[in-house]
Amino acid sequence: MTNHGPHGAARRLVLTVSCPDRSGIVAAITGFIASHGGWVAEAAQHSDLTTGRFFQRIEVLADSLPFGPEEFGERFAGVAEEFRLDFQVRDSGVPKRIVLLASREDHCLADVLHRWRRGDLRCEIPLVVSNHPDLEALVDWYGIGFRHVPVGAERKEEAFDAIAALVDGAGADLVVLARYMQILPASFCARYPERIVNIHHSFLPSFVGARPYHQAFERGVKLIGATCHYVTPELDAGPIIEQDTARIDHADSVQDLLRIGRDIERAVLARALRWLLEDRVLLNGARTVVFA
Amino acid sequence: MTNHGPHGAARRLVLTVSCPDRSGIVAAITGFIASHGGWVAEAAQHSDLTTGRFFQRIEVLADSLPFGPEEFGERFAGVAEEFRLDFQVRDSGVPKRIVLLASREDHCLADVLHRWRRGDLRCEIPLVVSNHPDLEALVDWYGIGFRHVPVGAERKEEAFDAIAALVDGAGADLVVLARYMQILPASFCARYPERIVNIHHSFLPSFVGARPYHQAFERGVKLIGATCHYVTPELDAGPIIEQDTARIDHADSVQDLLRIGRDIERAVLARALRWLLEDRVLLNGARTVVFA
Amino acid sequence: MTNHGPHGAARRLVLTVSCPDRSGIVAAITGFIASHGGWVAEAAQHSDLTTGRFFQRIEVLADSLPFGPEEFGERFAGVAEEFRLDFQVRDSGVPKRIVLLASREDHCLADVLHRWRRGDLRCEIPLVVSNHPDLEALVDWYGIGFRHVPVGAERKEEAFDAIAALVDGAGADLVVLARYMQILPASFCARYPERIVNIHHSFLPSFVGARPYHQAFERGVKLIGATCHYVTPELDAGPIIEQDTARIDHADSVQDLLRIGRDIERAVLARALRWLLEDRVLLNGARTVVFA
Amino acid sequence: MTNHGPHGAARRLVLTVSCPDRSGIVAAITGFIASHGGWVAEAAQHSDLTTGRFFQRIEVLADSLPFGPEEFGERFAGVAEEFRLDFQVRDSGVPKRIVLLASREDHCLADVLHRWRRGDLRCEIPLVVSNHPDLEALVDWYGIGFRHVPVGAERKEEAFDAIAALVDGAGADLVVLARYMQILPASFCARYPERIVNIHHSFLPSFVGARPYHQAFERGVKLIGATCHYVTPELDAGPIIEQDTARIDHADSVQDLLRIGRDIERAVLARALRWLLEDRVLLNGARTVVFA
Repeated sequence: MTNHGPHGAARRLVLTVSCPDRSGIVAAITGFIASHGGWVAEAAQHSDLTTGRFFQRIEVLADSLPFGPEEFGERFAGVAEEFRLDFQVRDSGVPKRIVLLASREDHCLADVLHRWRRGDLRCEIPLVVSNHPDLEALVDWYGIGFRHVPVGAERKEEAFDAIAALVDGAGADLVVLARYMQILPASFCARYPERIVNIHHSFLPSFVGARPYHQAFERGVKLIGATCHYVTPELDAGPIIEQDTARIDHADSVQDLLRIGRDIERAVLARALRWLLEDRVLLNGARTVVFA
Repeated sequence: MTNHGPHGAARRLVLTVSCPDRSGIVAAITGFIASHGGWVAEAAQHSDLTTGRFFQRIEVLADSLPFGPEEFGERFAGVAEEFRLDFQVRDSGVPKRIVLLASREDHCLADVLHRWRRGDLRCEIPLVVSNHPDLEALVDWYGIGFRHVPVGAERKEEAFDAIAALVDGAGADLVVLARYMQILPASFCARYPERIVNIHHSFLPSFVGARPYHQAFERGVKLIGATCHYVTPELDAGPIIEQDTARIDHADSVQDLLRIGRDIERAVLARALRWLLEDRVLLNGARTVVFA
Repeated sequence: MTNHGPHGAARRLVLTVSCPDRSGIVAAITGFIASHGGWVAEAAQHSDLTTGRFFQRIEVLADSLPFGPEEFGERFAGVAEEFRLDFQVRDSGVPKRIVLLASREDHCLADVLHRWRRGDLRCEIPLVVSNHPDLEALVDWYGIGFRHVPVGAERKEEAFDAIAALVDGAGADLVVLARYMQILPASFCARYPERIVNIHHSFLPSFVGARPYHQAFERGVKLIGATCHYVTPELDAGPIIEQDTARIDHADSVQDLLRIGRDIERAVLARALRWLLEDRVLLNGARTVVFA
Repeated sequence: MTNHGPHGAARRLVLTVSCPDRSGIVAAITGFIASHGGWVAEAAQHSDLTTGRFFQRIEVLADSLPFGPEEFGERFAGVAEEFRLDFQVRDSGVPKRIVLLASREDHCLADVLHRWRRGDLRCEIPLVVSNHPDLEALVDWYGIGFRHVPVGAERKEEAFDAIAALVDGAGADLVVLARYMQILPASFCARYPERIVNIHHSFLPSFVGARPYHQAFERGVKLIGATCHYVTPELDAGPIIEQDTARIDHADSVQDLLRIGRDIERAVLARALRWLLEDRVLLNGARTVVFA
């Protein structure tokens, strides 16, 4: 549950790496950084024994390096080639841009906006898109743009073309479904690989699809949960980023489950978003590595 | 973890009782209710073996009774006298009125207002009072009155006289300190016995007083917490209503503790408030009985 | 999470009731008790709004009544008939008898035996039956009988006839599958309705059947769980009594999941067993009411 | 919550490091390892911004290195000197030796022995010492030596001299107080710096000293906890290794708290012990770094 306070203020280059595991990787990477005077502020790594892949995330104080992320990438190419690294270098001083998709439920959206305004989520939110007009006043209050794009059963593709244009126009790094009650067309999913995340209101893989709290009530489970996952064309089956559960009992009605669930949903989404914004989430096949 | 959905819609009379324990109490109370055709929708009770006191909370469907709360009380007087009951009857259709006191931190206040607007917290909020002007825009958005009452070191009593006038003018049943960063004068505490609650940002009795997250960091605890308690003249020593904890680790700075703590604080306050609004909290000396 | 200490020592009659909900039930029941001088030490009730059924559990101090459980039942028949009550009266001074079925994994069995020996689980354990001989020494140490009944693919029914004979011979009220790695024949399930419970090593309904931790690992979930449920002929689909979850992360191998899971399994089983032994679990269709 | 399964089987050298933070440390350490062909199986690090110290723990596959822990240490001396490293190299194939001190309560002791026997805790347990004879049969069953050393109020130092002789004779790396109900003399604490750990039955710093569950009950807290900490001469004030909490409510008696607390105690102790045995706990002044 690592998180990161005061020298979060100091700008960093965040290097994330994935490659076939072998000996010498960390020495090569940190040797490269040290040879340029780089100060490693934080580092975490993982060797996956089932897939034989290695993952690492390193934060280097930006001021300690004589160059920025682009030149870092160019100079690092030799190391990357030798170790067959997939890598990415990001500047923590350039916040990611996220577009939120919402419907009528306001709790996840309101929570993200609240955290963003406090500075707890470091990102830019150029736009909120909704298939209903209800949440416009809330979004307005935060000084964020709101676009109402109705989604009908008939011209769904067209609606999502319009949404895609908005997402692209906003320069979004990430699309966040904040209780967006529409199933995305496969084409939309394919357009933003690893760039769409959803908060699902059940502890997946239980209760896929619609009305999961009703399903949970019927089954008589003693805890309910929520799941933040990458969106892939298969419904609610993408790699899981974060989950949590809360206790219920026989006296809780479906309405109680909905209410208790809202708190889990927004907590899970907030944690996942923070990790995504800080490049702490790496894909490992159908699973994720989260350097929390 | 009981809570209450659909027929929460139906109006109820909520009877809360406290008395010396003996045999026959429940029969007498429920016999009285049944003799008037009352339908018990929910009931909970507790016998405290250390103090010898009995506590009960009963919800009766209002439509099942031929009278309202006042007449209930009058007719019930005989039973009450026989069993030496302290009791209270409230009409769930008459929401309590709460006045919130806040300072600069917005997370608890914003959370309460959000839940209130959704209808998750059934109450009226006529007024928010703050010793700083910062949160006025937030409160405005919800259409709630905001009053800025500065509290200086010198004329503190005067300031709290003004606050008391506002609280009384608003007809408040409950005063909620939503991260209000002022120690209340004893006279103010005495004026509202069992009617002021505070959310303290530590797991009491650890880390009483100022800067509890800094204290927690110094001590190196592995979980932090928050506590909602009744306010009494002794600082952070009133009866505890609700608490919770969250895990931290060595990588978390004081700023991380503050951030993680904010989520615990608002969750604990929200649960406690819900229970208070539904008359689920009974005092038992220095402790509470919570029929959650 | 209610549980019950010191005057747990005092013998009680435990009345459990289930019936169609209507007004006057509690008054009738507690009136009956009071008319015989009964002292209600603990009581809990639940009205299920979806099924319209009422559930209650009452503990009466045995010494306060002029009769025992049989006569209580006889005298109570009138009330029961009027309100169409299904009811049961048990004497807390007569501990239930449980037979444990285990295989090779010792953690659940060892935990139950440990708690039983300490007196934390008030029951008699006349017998442990296993399809492997491995755990005999452990069971011996506790002075409990152990019977090895191998279960082959071929003569499975025969094996379970032998087990049924042992269960019946031991006068078991409850059969507890403590990580018993055999699917019970339908005939065995049918022989002991509502009298067999299992601890399943996943958070049901996820990961039904074999190797649930492997399934959880493959899916990349961020928490794992365990479930104690009544056994019905449909695999892992019986009414759930208790569940819990624990956090895992990407660094945890399947072996780690197995290890972490063992702790959840034994904790969930222990809580469920305590509630079963104290008659706190009532069936409500496919779900349970647990007066914890 | 990282833990480590399958290639836990493979022997490793575990390097733990603490030093003033500066740039180039990781490159130097991993460069040294890589220069000898070492395969890093796991690594974690922490920069403490308040103290300016750096901490690292690295597991190197033993077979990938041409030398063992002693020669590793000798060759590493140059790096260590340059960066002013405090370091330690341990061979995971040489399990630590722990001596357990217990009194009459068996739950922590029984749990540790159970996990040890299963192989979940990789250590050797040459001896259990108790000031009461009660637990001898339990310890016997595991084939472990048991010594009864009574501790009177009068000749306490003598008793602890005898215990120290037993601890030393057993070649113990670690002394574990498994609900040992004696306050250790300062001389005993001083003899084993950073080598004695205790499980305290409260969520420290609340409820130091005797009868913490009674204190918790009196204060009316809504969760109770347990704490595993290093033992220092000041009572219950040593660096905290692990803690956890569990929910209670008004219906729980002190006896319930004791019972619920036993489960937290053994869980907290088990996690802490696992980390200690795997060299995952580093001291950082009055706090700990735990590379879990």
